[in-house]
Amino acid sequence: MSEVDAVRSVIEEWLAASKAGDLNMLLTLMTDDVLFLTRNGVMRRDDFIAAFSAMAGNVLIEGRPDVQEITVEGNLAVCWNKLEVRIKPSADKEIVHAGDVLTVFQRGGDGRWRLWRDANLLAAV
Amino acid sequence: MSEVDAVRSVIEEWLAASKAGDLNMLLTLMTDDVLFLTRNGVMRRDDFIAAFSAMAGNVLIEGRPDVQEITVEGNLAVCWNKLEVRIKPSADKEIVHAGDVLTVFQRGGDGRWRLWRDANLLAAV
Repeated sequence: MSEVDAVRSVIEEWLAASKAGDLNMLLTLMTDDVLFLTRNGVMRRDDFIAAFSAMAGNVLIEGRPDVQEITVEGNLAVCWNKLEVRIKPSADKEIVHAGDVLTVFQRGGDGRWRLWRDANLLAAV
Repeated sequence: MSEVDAVRSVIEEWLAASKAGDLNMLLTLMTDDVLFLTRNGVMRRDDFIAAFSAMAGNVLIEGRPDVQEITVEGNLAVCWNKLEVRIKPSADKEIVHAGDVLTVFQRGGDGRWRLWRDANLLAAV
């Protein structure tokens, strides 16, 4: 598997874990010092845990990626993704967010890629 | 000068050129395939030229960076910046935008760093 494919796999695993509400899996896919830049400010690992825990079990989160490019340079990989996220707070309700995401993945000493820096421009559509 | 300082210089030159309305200078500070991800969609080099040309001479753009980190890996450098931009369409008017920016700079064959990928979460404050 090429490094680009390995990064692509992490994105797929991320979205599958989000949909499954699997926080433990998500935590293995991000670095300890992960940083999410969003429209609502900066989130670190602990903020992510709090926000995800508040939703998990109550909300279905279905993300559809449209990866535009992945560039690997040493232990960093830069990905531009057009992401659509369907958030279902209940069976009869659906909120759709879409937009561009710039993500930098970091390859750890164990050779695994993890989400490290993420700037997310998603907005309701 | 360290590579981190070299990237920091490009950020300073970028903001100085923006303030001076110096499009030619700005074009030397970005790659040909530069990509700006913004709240209003994706801009490429030609879109930047059109947008900047429409403002230059009429609007003063003053940016104040607060660089949080710069990480160099090979020919890429990842920067998290908290940016404040004061836009002055006339002497008695001022619009302030602020927010997080994730920028990836690329070092060219000539050893110079240029803006390559930029995700800009600025909003009016």
